[in-house]
Amino acid sequence: MAKIQRFGYVLCHLVLVLVNVFVFRKMFYEKEKLSWSQKAAEEAEAVASISCSGHGRAYIDGYVVDGKPICECYSCYGGTNCSLFFPNCPADVDGGDPLFLEPFWIQNAASSAVVVSGWHRMSYFFPNQSHISKELDRNIRKIHAIAKNAITNGRYIVFGVGSTQLLHAAVHALSIDNSTSSSPYLATKVVANKIPYYSPYKFQTEYFQTHHYEFEGDSSMLKNKSDFAGNVIEYVTSPNNPDGNLRSSDLKGPSVKPIYDRAYYWPHYTAIPAPVDEDLIIFSMSKLTGHAGTRFGWAIVKDVNVYRRMVEFIDLAEMGTSKDAQLRALTLLKVVAEGDGKQLFNFAHQILMDRWEKLSQMFSLSKRFSLQRIPTQHCIFVERAREPSPAYAWVKCKRKEDKNCTEIFRVAKIIGRPGSKFFAGDRYVRLSLLKGQHDFDMLILRLKQLVSLEYEASAQVMSSSY
Amino acid sequence: MAKIQRFGYVLCHLVLVLVNVFVFRKMFYEKEKLSWSQKAAEEAEAVASISCSGHGRAYIDGYVVDGKPICECYSCYGGTNCSLFFPNCPADVDGGDPLFLEPFWIQNAASSAVVVSGWHRMSYFFPNQSHISKELDRNIRKIHAIAKNAITNGRYIVFGVGSTQLLHAAVHALSIDNSTSSSPYLATKVVANKIPYYSPYKFQTEYFQTHHYEFEGDSSMLKNKSDFAGNVIEYVTSPNNPDGNLRSSDLKGPSVKPIYDRAYYWPHYTAIPAPVDEDLIIFSMSKLTGHAGTRFGWAIVKDVNVYRRMVEFIDLAEMGTSKDAQLRALTLLKVVAEGDGKQLFNFAHQILMDRWEKLSQMFSLSKRFSLQRIPTQHCIFVERAREPSPAYAWVKCKRKEDKNCTEIFRVAKIIGRPGSKFFAGDRYVRLSLLKGQHDFDMLILRLKQLVSLEYEASAQVMSSSY
Repeated sequence: MAKIQRFGYVLCHLVLVLVNVFVFRKMFYEKEKLSWSQKAAEEAEAVASISCSGHGRAYIDGYVVDGKPICECYSCYGGTNCSLFFPNCPADVDGGDPLFLEPFWIQNAASSAVVVSGWHRMSYFFPNQSHISKELDRNIRKIHAIAKNAITNGRYIVFGVGSTQLLHAAVHALSIDNSTSSSPYLATKVVANKIPYYSPYKFQTEYFQTHHYEFEGDSSMLKNKSDFAGNVIEYVTSPNNPDGNLRSSDLKGPSVKPIYDRAYYWPHYTAIPAPVDEDLIIFSMSKLTGHAGTRFGWAIVKDVNVYRRMVEFIDLAEMGTSKDAQLRALTLLKVVAEGDGKQLFNFAHQILMDRWEKLSQMFSLSKRFSLQRIPTQHCIFVERAREPSPAYAWVKCKRKEDKNCTEIFRVAKIIGRPGSKFFAGDRYVRLSLLKGQHDFDMLILRLKQLVSLEYEASAQVMSSSY
Repeated sequence: MAKIQRFGYVLCHLVLVLVNVFVFRKMFYEKEKLSWSQKAAEEAEAVASISCSGHGRAYIDGYVVDGKPICECYSCYGGTNCSLFFPNCPADVDGGDPLFLEPFWIQNAASSAVVVSGWHRMSYFFPNQSHISKELDRNIRKIHAIAKNAITNGRYIVFGVGSTQLLHAAVHALSIDNSTSSSPYLATKVVANKIPYYSPYKFQTEYFQTHHYEFEGDSSMLKNKSDFAGNVIEYVTSPNNPDGNLRSSDLKGPSVKPIYDRAYYWPHYTAIPAPVDEDLIIFSMSKLTGHAGTRFGWAIVKDVNVYRRMVEFIDLAEMGTSKDAQLRALTLLKVVAEGDGKQLFNFAHQILMDRWEKLSQMFSLSKRFSLQRIPTQHCIFVERAREPSPAYAWVKCKRKEDKNCTEIFRVAKIIGRPGSKFFAGDRYVRLSLLKGQHDFDMLILRLKQLVSLEYEASAQVMSSSY
């Protein structure tokens, strides 16, 4: 009996010792596995775990008070932990901040995290004296193949600080090209496809005031000028910002060079009727993954000389694009390509389609306001006809007396972007559908109140007529 | 006896159980501590541990072959693991890649690592619709206070994509300012302080060809033109690139606006006689911490209107600077400020001083070549007179027949930057002292061979004269 008991103790003891040896080895091994990155990882996770009452976010580079980054509250929330709600606050849907994609990255936290060593890419160059990450180039082409939205085979890719810089670089490259032709002293005319159009085309072109080009307005300005024989650059935004419709170049002829701004040509925002294959196409991370803050975009270019001039522009302007932005973009695009590569696109489309449905429903109750129409089209990405899911609502105030639509919305506590900023006049206002859920919810709440005013008014008319 | 034995077993058992409970809790706790960042951290450390035979480096965004980023070999090394040495390879000391600082960041790996979540700063903006990290602004001012090299109190700070973009933004801001004055149609003249000067001043100004300004050469071009009454912008590089000497504005008067490029005004490269306090001063991460690839610089500006115009330029050009670059810069500057804040400066100065000593020794043996002279000056950072430690050697070929100095060095397997690129003529060549240790060692080896030729030649002359 005592022998069995003793044997039991010894066995038990042995098992415990073995377990300890295993556990200690594992601990030691785990400890070895993470060395220099442990501290930064702990700090990042600690900051990420600051809750801000679910109405804000703390960032590792946030303003530090008492040794901790402060909560940055969503609009309509305040207080040190964002627990205060301001019920009278307006729905701010002016800007194009693509924060509707934030939840996707929180869901994919492990694969989308980036760990950068202190000595990462200190040089000006990648190998071969290039400012461009070959891996990122390769992944960009892969994403276009998955989204079926652009042909990249045999095309050159230029990186820039957001599509904003690439628009500038493209105009420069195309106008220098033109200036070497037969009419060297005639500045290239730059036009935007059609009203309404994205205002930076005008402001950027006018701001930099070079000898090579000048802004002329929308393309109708040149159609009417039968005497203009010079070179023309046409900005074509497709899908268009603000109204989400697909567009193509309006001017024809050998002296016309279109720049296709295709920031929104992704399955999130539009049906993809076919992969595009234009001479110069611009895309951006901002509207693909939602990382506007990273400031990274790319252009797909057919002509090697235009490509070279764009690279030269970016090199002279700032010696290429931040290696840190390129690393971030690479990591995010790898996540997009995971599995069947449809996860992000489906996520984004679902949200925007839901938002558009809710909005359409709301506006269908109104006789005072109308929304843009977006035709249903076949989409090769989903292989069926696609419901609309635009980035913005482009709203018209239909009543004769509602001359300033933005002001009407402002009074109703909805901050939109005035139609005049798209050169379409004050009868229009753009409302962003890209922002965070709290902003969209606030928009719907305020819209409900605005539209219900119509019913109250007609009820008053009805009751007074009895 | 049996009781004691049993008691011993039980005690032993109990201790083991307690140890296990403690260890398991610790494991569980540790596991909880790192969740979403664990995978990325492991990957980053795995890539960092690829040795590349000590003659290269693998990066997490490197070109992937067989699922692993390849080794990127230092110059003169090759093969898949960089184990091949090419003994006939030249010393490439052309560029200004500040890789001599890499070892500092490897030594400070834990504090300089950055962990970025997938949802980090997706917005275009920091709080208050700003493109500028307040924390980074605060840390930049702190570093200047530590280095005692610039006054920042009551000054505005503008962020840019490297000093390169800020040079452009500054010229634009100052020339628009000028164009609103009495002579609106006279383009502002842009000059560089003195020959030799950094070539992008010329190339950038000429490349963008705006209506506002035009490049005129060095400041002597205007001194001689007594009839020029317009506005002038003068680029002053201090310490100067290529020769490392401190400089000040050459032109005087109310119509002259200097832009001080102070990329090298850090205790690494020069004595700091006093904190500077000019109207517009430009600095960069590249030459402070060695992170050229991050593309981040800043300008310190006195006048609020010039500040606003520079911000407007950068916003219109690319909607601010990458948030990822700003986060990296913030993390690195925090490391620089650690302890007494002198660690990086002393590290950098020690290396450059050693290199300069070695180089000076080498050139002292030569009658054929001469090095620039750098006067010893009192430095308020180290509180004593400072030995020279310039970023570049500015070498003159003294023999009448050695008209093309760059070519002479090229034949001796040393690739420098031609003096003509600094508008100083072919009798000069610039050799970088900023590169990695292997590049500097190769330079010294090749120089030894080049200088020894003088002795061989004179020995031959000696022997033939006997």
